[in-house]
Amino acid sequence: MSDAAEEVKVAPTMPAMVLPPGLEGVAVAETSIGDVRGEHGFFHYRGYDAVELARTCSFEQVWYLLTEGELPDREQTRRFREETAQLRRLPEEVAKLLPAIAAIEPFAPLDALRTAVSLTASALGLRPVMDISAEEIRLQAVRMTALVPVMLMGLYRAHQGQEPVPADPELGYAAAYLQMLTGEHPHEKHARAVEKYLILTMDHGFNASTFTARVIISTGADLGSALVGAIGALSGPMHGGAPSRALQTLDEIGTEDRAYEYLRRRVASGQRLMGFGHRIYKTDDPRSTLLREVALELGGEQAQFAQQVERIALKVLNELKPGRRLYTNVEYYAGVVMNTAGIPGDLFTPTFASSRMVGWTAAICEQAAHNRLIRPSAVYVGPSPPRPLPDGYGYS
Amino acid sequence: MSDAAEEVKVAPTMPAMVLPPGLEGVAVAETSIGDVRGEHGFFHYRGYDAVELARTCSFEQVWYLLTEGELPDREQTRRFREETAQLRRLPEEVAKLLPAIAAIEPFAPLDALRTAVSLTASALGLRPVMDISAEEIRLQAVRMTALVPVMLMGLYRAHQGQEPVPADPELGYAAAYLQMLTGEHPHEKHARAVEKYLILTMDHGFNASTFTARVIISTGADLGSALVGAIGALSGPMHGGAPSRALQTLDEIGTEDRAYEYLRRRVASGQRLMGFGHRIYKTDDPRSTLLREVALELGGEQAQFAQQVERIALKVLNELKPGRRLYTNVEYYAGVVMNTAGIPGDLFTPTFASSRMVGWTAAICEQAAHNRLIRPSAVYVGPSPPRPLPDGYGYS
Repeated sequence: MSDAAEEVKVAPTMPAMVLPPGLEGVAVAETSIGDVRGEHGFFHYRGYDAVELARTCSFEQVWYLLTEGELPDREQTRRFREETAQLRRLPEEVAKLLPAIAAIEPFAPLDALRTAVSLTASALGLRPVMDISAEEIRLQAVRMTALVPVMLMGLYRAHQGQEPVPADPELGYAAAYLQMLTGEHPHEKHARAVEKYLILTMDHGFNASTFTARVIISTGADLGSALVGAIGALSGPMHGGAPSRALQTLDEIGTEDRAYEYLRRRVASGQRLMGFGHRIYKTDDPRSTLLREVALELGGEQAQFAQQVERIALKVLNELKPGRRLYTNVEYYAGVVMNTAGIPGDLFTPTFASSRMVGWTAAICEQAAHNRLIRPSAVYVGPSPPRPLPDGYGYS
Repeated sequence: MSDAAEEVKVAPTMPAMVLPPGLEGVAVAETSIGDVRGEHGFFHYRGYDAVELARTCSFEQVWYLLTEGELPDREQTRRFREETAQLRRLPEEVAKLLPAIAAIEPFAPLDALRTAVSLTASALGLRPVMDISAEEIRLQAVRMTALVPVMLMGLYRAHQGQEPVPADPELGYAAAYLQMLTGEHPHEKHARAVEKYLILTMDHGFNASTFTARVIISTGADLGSALVGAIGALSGPMHGGAPSRALQTLDEIGTEDRAYEYLRRRVASGQRLMGFGHRIYKTDDPRSTLLREVALELGGEQAQFAQQVERIALKVLNELKPGRRLYTNVEYYAGVVMNTAGIPGDLFTPTFASSRMVGWTAAICEQAAHNRLIRPSAVYVGPSPPRPLPDGYGYS
């Protein structure tokens, strides 16, 4: 066979289309869960303004909306609260292992949660979504979402050398979230502030972790596999972010009179200002608008100070980056709200993972119901095949 | 504000492009790791025919090729074998937990491996790839690949109530794989047969699990997060497959004289024949060609029987599905080879995961080196926002 013939024999299968590696602006699915309208500072869940939902509804009402597709009435809400409160019990063998997982150093709560979710999925015997009904997937989805705070607080307390606190079944998701952390019934205003944050972060269009969950489910895998992948994606600094970094900046600034100079130096030296700017929003991030309000309602010096620094930061950005449309993003006040409500900094991103469980599981149910394997291709750009092995190359 | 104005305010951000949900034939990245030329029954690693590599080289030589980009010479191979043999030691705290993970029923080795990989990543303190050097990522990649068989065999043996077997540092990857399973030094022909299988399944273009690993890494996450996601995707019945199913079919047929009727009935009733047909290959799957040879070389009745049944199956498919170009795929002889070499059926897919670690980690290194967040979008098709809340709807 001549060389030419050989080359034809292994000619590449040409892709129908070659896309930018980030797939920006490329739609790869249809969804009826929600989307983000970045130019208008608006995002929604199943058509309802997410900010209005956070202002008006309980965690359970919006969880039900995303899971079932419609808002629950009073009786449906009551039953869903009861159903989900009953689900806050870990399989015994998982509960027993949490201290050992939490003992692994360096303790990173989100990574520990990834392990605990993987273990819980095994203990619950979650089967491939391909082999089970939509109703069974929904039950698993609700159960895993109810269990994530139990795992997380169990891990966190174990790492502090404390026993886990069983959730009070009378409390809703948000209040129980704080109660399982501290062992105390939370102030209502703290629970409500955290609840608003949790609702605001349940979903946000087709983000990287939601896409990860869909790709995994598209192979027919079980719900647990999709969730560990999603948690993994969320742990990436370019995705899950770190509301704790914005707080750090506030700490470093210390007093208002130092803010202008500190921020100018930072921006002028090319560093990013944590808590400002967003890939999609070119206007106020609607989440930051509500969280500012929530932070100020909660009161406390930190919220006041954050607002003073925010004004100065926006002035600095406007001076040094004119026309870049950099606004306050969700991270900025999220840290203030969580901190004031008593959530420690290393639980900020895991708290985000807890609420995003609602969006992930909604996406998983949607993907499983209309499934098609997600399997793009790549363009090979390396040395042309077939390369002959080096002369005399052999087993060693 | 009028309704019309409101509607304009939340008009959707139009995606630049809308693609089929499976992204088939759509290239989303460049790669120099390898690709698959389905029409020609050919796939390669960095330009070298993968089948020729499996015939000629050791696991370590091809692992090095995929990791470093070039084939190692003798001295490089020797050093890489030594380096990787030293890495087959689990962190103490992980080793101690394997029995507890393996005790969770129902025991599913691949799910247990997902948990163990997550735990090991924590114990090794793997940091976000964004924050570390390419060299550090490479070291982590090689280490995790070396550790996966240690975790897997530790879990499997623990589930059988047996102590783990430390790997003999004198043995290469493939022989140590079997030795850690049984505690005995394997027959050389078994080790070599398994080694060929492992090399053949290290990578295969841009498959769903590799894509999952890339999406997760694209957020800047740590290597462990990408690997648990990839294992999760591989566990899906549409991806990782189940070479054990092809063996089951052989068992059900029992004797050659029953094959024709059994297979005809099965195909005629619309069931898939496990071990035949491939989404990409429209010719002999090059992996099945080599694995047939390997199975026959290993000898034994099962290989002979499998070959007889294969001929009859291809005849039946040709009769009942003419023109469909259905050929033997990788699953068919993979099960025979692994079974004959002493690997139990429930370790078939985890064995595939072990070798695919090489491809996943190569993809992770490549993605991390040229990173861009992979974040496509979706087209929202639900009720038009903003939907007003129902009259009087409130907190409950």
